[in-house]
Amino acid sequence: MTVTEEKGTISIHTENIFPIIKKFLYSDHEIFLRELVSNAIDAVQKLKRLSSLGEYSGELGELKVKVSFDEAAKTITVSDNGIGMTADEIKKYINQIAFSGAKEFLEKYKDAGEGNQIIGNFGLGFYSAFMVAERVEIQTLSFREGAQAARWASEGNTEFEITKGERTERGTDIILHVAEDSKEFLDKFRLENILKKYSRFMPVAIEFDGKVINNTAPIWAKSPNDLKDEDYLAFYKELYPFSEDPLFWIHLNVDYPFNLTGVLYFPKLKNDLSLHREKIQLYSRQVFITDEVKDIVPEFLMLLHGVIDSPDIPLNVSRSYLQADSNVKKINTHITKKVADKLSELFKADRKGFEEKFDDIGLFIKYGMVADDKFYEKAKDFVLVKNTDNQYATIEEYRQKVEPVQTDKEGSVVMLYTTDPGKQDTFIQSAKKRGYDVLQLNGILDSHFINTLESKFEKVSLKRVDSDTIDKLINKEETISGILNDEEKKNLKEWFEQTLNDKNLSISVSPLPTDELPVTITLPEFMRRMQDMAKTGGNPMFGSFPTTYQVTINENHTLTQEILKADEAKRGQLIRHVYDLALLSQNLLSGSHLTSFIQRTLDLTK
Amino acid sequence: MTVTEEKGTISIHTENIFPIIKKFLYSDHEIFLRELVSNAIDAVQKLKRLSSLGEYSGELGELKVKVSFDEAAKTITVSDNGIGMTADEIKKYINQIAFSGAKEFLEKYKDAGEGNQIIGNFGLGFYSAFMVAERVEIQTLSFREGAQAARWASEGNTEFEITKGERTERGTDIILHVAEDSKEFLDKFRLENILKKYSRFMPVAIEFDGKVINNTAPIWAKSPNDLKDEDYLAFYKELYPFSEDPLFWIHLNVDYPFNLTGVLYFPKLKNDLSLHREKIQLYSRQVFITDEVKDIVPEFLMLLHGVIDSPDIPLNVSRSYLQADSNVKKINTHITKKVADKLSELFKADRKGFEEKFDDIGLFIKYGMVADDKFYEKAKDFVLVKNTDNQYATIEEYRQKVEPVQTDKEGSVVMLYTTDPGKQDTFIQSAKKRGYDVLQLNGILDSHFINTLESKFEKVSLKRVDSDTIDKLINKEETISGILNDEEKKNLKEWFEQTLNDKNLSISVSPLPTDELPVTITLPEFMRRMQDMAKTGGNPMFGSFPTTYQVTINENHTLTQEILKADEAKRGQLIRHVYDLALLSQNLLSGSHLTSFIQRTLDLTK
Repeated sequence: MTVTEEKGTISIHTENIFPIIKKFLYSDHEIFLRELVSNAIDAVQKLKRLSSLGEYSGELGELKVKVSFDEAAKTITVSDNGIGMTADEIKKYINQIAFSGAKEFLEKYKDAGEGNQIIGNFGLGFYSAFMVAERVEIQTLSFREGAQAARWASEGNTEFEITKGERTERGTDIILHVAEDSKEFLDKFRLENILKKYSRFMPVAIEFDGKVINNTAPIWAKSPNDLKDEDYLAFYKELYPFSEDPLFWIHLNVDYPFNLTGVLYFPKLKNDLSLHREKIQLYSRQVFITDEVKDIVPEFLMLLHGVIDSPDIPLNVSRSYLQADSNVKKINTHITKKVADKLSELFKADRKGFEEKFDDIGLFIKYGMVADDKFYEKAKDFVLVKNTDNQYATIEEYRQKVEPVQTDKEGSVVMLYTTDPGKQDTFIQSAKKRGYDVLQLNGILDSHFINTLESKFEKVSLKRVDSDTIDKLINKEETISGILNDEEKKNLKEWFEQTLNDKNLSISVSPLPTDELPVTITLPEFMRRMQDMAKTGGNPMFGSFPTTYQVTINENHTLTQEILKADEAKRGQLIRHVYDLALLSQNLLSGSHLTSFIQRTLDLTK
Repeated sequence: MTVTEEKGTISIHTENIFPIIKKFLYSDHEIFLRELVSNAIDAVQKLKRLSSLGEYSGELGELKVKVSFDEAAKTITVSDNGIGMTADEIKKYINQIAFSGAKEFLEKYKDAGEGNQIIGNFGLGFYSAFMVAERVEIQTLSFREGAQAARWASEGNTEFEITKGERTERGTDIILHVAEDSKEFLDKFRLENILKKYSRFMPVAIEFDGKVINNTAPIWAKSPNDLKDEDYLAFYKELYPFSEDPLFWIHLNVDYPFNLTGVLYFPKLKNDLSLHREKIQLYSRQVFITDEVKDIVPEFLMLLHGVIDSPDIPLNVSRSYLQADSNVKKINTHITKKVADKLSELFKADRKGFEEKFDDIGLFIKYGMVADDKFYEKAKDFVLVKNTDNQYATIEEYRQKVEPVQTDKEGSVVMLYTTDPGKQDTFIQSAKKRGYDVLQLNGILDSHFINTLESKFEKVSLKRVDSDTIDKLINKEETISGILNDEEKKNLKEWFEQTLNDKNLSISVSPLPTDELPVTITLPEFMRRMQDMAKTGGNPMFGSFPTTYQVTINENHTLTQEILKADEAKRGQLIRHVYDLALLSQNLLSGSHLTSFIQRTLDLTK
C-alpha cells in the first residue's frame, strides 16, 4: 500500500450520471418539448445558413418543424426538414453526451454573422427526451448528396443501436415512446399549451394539429423604425389578450456590452402592487425561458409588462447564480436608465398627458424612487404630487407654491397631506380655511415616499392634516387669545378627565379659533409613523408602544361656555357629546359609544 | 456514407460535463460546505460502524469534524478523523465522478442496521468544492494498518495528480484554495452562518473557531418517551430564539410506508396568515435541506413551526418533481391526519384549555377545513365559533342553541354574524334586543369558512347582522302594523328621493318597531358577498356590479312624524340628518357630509 505518484484524468461514470441528467437537469419535465423543438429549429437554421453560404445548393422548400402525437401508439414526434444527420454524425452528436455540436458549428461559422441564430447550448437538450420517454427513436436523412437514411434508438439506459433508416426526405424525426408515468403529455391541449408557452415566438414555422402555432417574427426582433404604434398595441394584445391598452412602451435594443432586445410596456397600475407581477417574459433567441424574472429585472420594474430577449442570460441556472452574474447586473442598470429617460422625455414633451397618466404610473415611479437611488435622481424632477383639488405639481414647484404660507418658525416648509380625503375631511376643511394646501398621499407606498422626500429635500417636512390642532399644525408662533381664566381651565380639564376616564388621552385646554370644533382629537405625526412602522415591519417593540391621543378643548367655543355653566348631569352629557363629535371627525367613534351617540343625537333632534 | 448497423454505449465527455456539474448542480454555491462537512461526517460514521463490527480495533479517540480557514492563504479546510483513504481509494472514489462510494458501502453493510447513518448520495458532493475553489487538495491517511498518507490535487479541469501525503493521523483534510470570485466565503461570519444553517443538527461534533457549533442529538432523533415538555420547549427556543412559547406540539415518528421523524409546533397565530411561513425546516438524516417546504407540507400546515426529517425526500430536486413524488404525497396525508388527531384529542381532553387556545389556532383549523376535505371531516366536530359575549360552541352545539329563536319560515336556521363588533354595534344591539345571538366572524378566512359551512350543513345559512332590517333579518312572516296611510308613505319616499338624490339607493317605507332607527341602511348579504369576491378574486365582472343600498324609512318612528309635519326647509334638514345617522350606523358617513353633520349636530346641541 505505498503511494505511486501519478497524473491522470478524472472520468465520469456514464451509468451513474445519466439518471441525474435525465431526472434533475430541468426542473419541469415539460421542458423536453422546448429542447426538441429548439433542436429541430437549429437543424433548419443551419440548413438556411449553409444554403446562403453556397454550401448547399438544393431546394430549401417550405422550411418548418412539425409536432404530432399518437395517443394509441403512445408516441410524440418532432420532425424537421433541416440538415438531417448521417450515421457518423449521430455517433458524434448523439452518442457522446455534452459534445455540444452547436458549439462546434458556431466555432466554424462564427464570422458569418448568422451563427447566433443557433439556440443549442450544452448538447444535453436531446437527452431531456428521456425525462418523459422510455424509448427514443431518431429517423434522419442528411442534406448531403448521396447520404443514406439512418435510425437510432435507445431505451434510456446507456445502450443504443444504429440501423438503416426509413426517411426519404431530408430532415429528422425524433420519436418519443412515452413512459407510463408521463402519459399526461399525450394530450392535444397539454402539448399545444407547452408549445405556446415556449415556442410561441420561435423563428421557424411550427405546425401542430394542422396549423402553425407560432409568430416567427415578433416585434422585438424588428427595428423600431419599421414599427408603428398599432404594431406595439397589437403585440400587447397578443401577449395579454384581456388587458387594457398599455399607457406607453419602450423598445430596448442593446448591442454592447451585452446583447438585449425587448419591448417593455407600462400598464395602468392604479393603486395595486400585487396583481401585476410575472408579466415580463424572458426569452433567449426567441425561445421562452421564464416569466419569473425576479433577479434579472429590478423589483420595481417588475410592474412593467412585455418581453426581454437576451442570449447573454444563461438558461437553466439557479437564482443565486443569476444574482451574481455581471451581465445580469448590467442589464438591470441599463433597463432602469432607459425607463427613467423615457419617463423624463414624456414629461417634457407632454406635461398634460403625463399628468393624466400619473394616477396609473405614479405608483411605479414612487416605487423606483424609494428602491433605487439612481432612478430617484432622475425621477425627482418629474414625479408629481396631487392636492385635494386634483392639481398636480412637481416637488420643487409645490415647494415654491406653498412656501409663502406654509413655512414654520424654524424656516421649514411644512407640506400637509391626507391619507383619506373622505375620513379626514373635517381637518382638510379647517386647513383650507386658513389658506393651507393639502396633498393626497394615499397610495400604498406613500409612507415610504414621504420618508424618502424628507431625507432628500432640505428644510421640507410632511405632516398629516389631522396630526395637530390647527394653530400648531404649522407652528408659526402666532398666539390666539383665550377667554377663560386658569380656574375655569383647570375645572374643564378635570371634568373631562373624570367623564372620559381614559389613561391613553392627554387632555389640555387651548385657545383655538371659534369656528374650530369644541374638542379636537389628534395623534402626533411621529407617533402615527411609529404605529405604521409597527404594522408593516412587525417589530414587536413598536407594537407595545402606547398610543396617546391628544385631546384639545377649545376654550373659545360657545359650547365650552355651556359646559362651564351646566349642572353636573347636563355637563357630563355635553362633555360626552362634544367628545363623541371629535371622535367622529377622526373616525374613532364605534361600538356602544357610537350606538348611544346616535340615540342621543336622535333625542336632541326632537 | 452507408449505414453500418451497430450497437454501443453512450459516452459522456467529461471535459464538457464537468463545468455543468461544477456550476449548475446546486442552486447555491454555499452548498459546497454542506457537502464537504457531510462527507467528513460520513467518514467518521463509517469508522464507528467498522469499529462496532470489529473490523477496526484501534482507538476511536474523540471523533469530530473541524472546519477552519486562512484568509491570507485563501484556504478553507474541512478535516475529519474518520476512515481516511488510501491512494487506491482516492482513485476509485474521487477520480471517477458519480461512482457513489456511499452506495457501495451501504450495499455491503445494509443488513447491519446502521447503514442509514450515511448521508452521501450521488458521489457528486465532493466536486461541489470547485464551485468556489480554483484548486482543491486532499491530504489523507487511511485507518488501515500500514497505510501510507496520500495527497491528491486538481485545478478544476479534469487533470489530477496523486503524490505522497503529509498526514500523520488517521483521517482526511480537504483544502480549498478559494477562487477570486468566491472570496466572500473567506469570512468567519459567513462560514459560521453556513455551518449553522446546514450543519446545526448533524450527528458528529463540528468544531469551528474553537467551539462546537452543532447539537448532535436533536430531539426529533430521540424517542418521545424519553422527552419532557421542557425538552420540547427548549428545542423550540433553540430553533426560534425570539418567539413566544408554542401552544402544543406533535412528535412525528413514522417507519412505514416511508421514514419520517419530526416535531411540529403550533405557534400562536393570531389573525395573520402571512408572517408565519417558512418556519418548518426540512432535514434529511440531520442535514438541513431547505425551509421552503411548500410542496412537501400541505399549504395550511405551513403555518406550523418545527422540523421534519426524512431520508425518503430526495435532495436537490425540482419543485415539479416533488409534487409528483408519491412519497411526498403520502407524507402530506400522514401529517394532516396526525395533526387532526392531535387537535381532536386536545379538544376532548381539555375543552376549556382548547377554548382558551382557540383564538390562536382557529385560523389554522379553518384554513385546513377550507383547503382539505379530509381535514374538514375531522375538524367539523371540534372547530369552535364565538359569539359577541365571547362564548364558544361547536357548530352543532351552536345550531341547537339558536334553533328555537332563529329558524325562519323556510325551516332554515339563520346564524347571524358580525365582521366588526365595533362598527356594527347598532345592528348587534338591535338583534340582541330581539333575543338573537350574534357570532364574531371577523377572521381573514371567515368568508371562505362561511361558504364551507353553508355547503356542508343542511338548512343552515349565515347572514351578516347589518344585511337587512330587523324584521326581515330572520324572516318569520310576522307582521308589524304601520301607522301611515299610502299617501303619506308615497310622499315620504318622494321627499327622501329628492333630498338624497342618489341612484344607488333603493328607498322604501316599512313599519318597524318604534325603538329602531328612523332610517336604516342595509346591503343585502348576497350583494356584499359578490363585492367581497370581486375584491379578493379580482374578477372585473363583479367590480362593475353596481352596489345598491336598501334605505328603509321606519314609518313608526316619532321623527318620521316630525318629517311629515315639517315645512319644506326643515323637512330637508331632518331627512338629511336621519339619513346621516343611518349612514353613521353603517360607517358610511364621510367627507363633506361628515363635516356638515358634525356642524349640524353642534348647532342642534345649543
